[in-house]
Amino acid sequence: MSKGLLIVLSGPSGVGKGTVCNALRGKMDNLVYSVSATTRNPRVGEEDGVNYFFKSRDQFTDMIEHDQLLEYAEYVGNYYGTPRDFVEQTLLSGKDIILEIEVQGALKVKEKFPEGIFIFLLPPSLDELEGRIRGRGTESQATIEHRLSVAVDEIGLMEHYDYAVVNDQIDQACKRIESIVIAEHCKVRSSGI
Amino acid sequence: MSKGLLIVLSGPSGVGKGTVCNALRGKMDNLVYSVSATTRNPRVGEEDGVNYFFKSRDQFTDMIEHDQLLEYAEYVGNYYGTPRDFVEQTLLSGKDIILEIEVQGALKVKEKFPEGIFIFLLPPSLDELEGRIRGRGTESQATIEHRLSVAVDEIGLMEHYDYAVVNDQIDQACKRIESIVIAEHCKVRSSGI
Repeated sequence: MSKGLLIVLSGPSGVGKGTVCNALRGKMDNLVYSVSATTRNPRVGEEDGVNYFFKSRDQFTDMIEHDQLLEYAEYVGNYYGTPRDFVEQTLLSGKDIILEIEVQGALKVKEKFPEGIFIFLLPPSLDELEGRIRGRGTESQATIEHRLSVAVDEIGLMEHYDYAVVNDQIDQACKRIESIVIAEHCKVRSSGI
Repeated sequence: MSKGLLIVLSGPSGVGKGTVCNALRGKMDNLVYSVSATTRNPRVGEEDGVNYFFKSRDQFTDMIEHDQLLEYAEYVGNYYGTPRDFVEQTLLSGKDIILEIEVQGALKVKEKFPEGIFIFLLPPSLDELEGRIRGRGTESQATIEHRLSVAVDEIGLMEHYDYAVVNDQIDQACKRIESIVIAEHCKVRSSGI
């Protein structure tokens, strides 16, 4: 049995990573979704090991120190990260695993897993991205402008990725991502087939 | 408008290149089929520029001398080759072009077009390939054994290709090839997107 593929789906905030990732669920038989570790408290209905691996702050910093996270970040006072073990066990079982993470986190994963497939999700245009960020209706003008300027910087990091997928329509974006995974499984690798 | 992709579909004799190529027709909007040049006489119903570019022997050797063919071979006393012009014009028009050729010819194309996408079509097994060659019912035992031994040698050249697609079922093989083309269009290239 051959090892699975690590697929990293990333892109600027507001581009629709979560929506595309959810739409992929159920479309691809051999694909497992990475479960993040977090120090935030479980919400009602959330299950440990399903929605997140819930950790204490001590447990989390211990994971950091023992290099058990492929990437992590602090957000609104809580840690979030990708446990290396879960990813490696999934790959060894022959299944593909998909990580949906921020641009900086994805580049950290690339340092540890250069053989991963790095997909950058692009908005159809910056105007469209601005519309989507505004559409949330919860942010001030200054926040929107900051988010957009971060997005522009992040799009500049696209060259470190293997693929760029435009999220013009969700089903089209999903089809492109599915195609990338199928194609990667057909790649002739030096190890032979 | 970006340039199209050159897709080369190759593989051992009997693997089903022609069948898969025909099945792809109509499935992919942006895909043009390469038209070969030949010195053989047109058969009834064959049109110049559609089925083949029909050439005299002098015209053909002239094309060879002027490097106007990406590859060529002699088969049963006639020349067959891939005109470079038709391929380049198609790519410049922004369309993808697919070449269905023998393994040695594909490697010659690779020398001239290293940026092409080289797909090796594999039989599900050597037994299956033997069955397909025998199934034609026209060859002697010695010929069948010769063809199989050539096929084994050719499969050894797979490492020079970008992708290997198993032709277990035609629609599955087509889906894999379509996926490869979609994925290649999403690739982040150094030239930028």
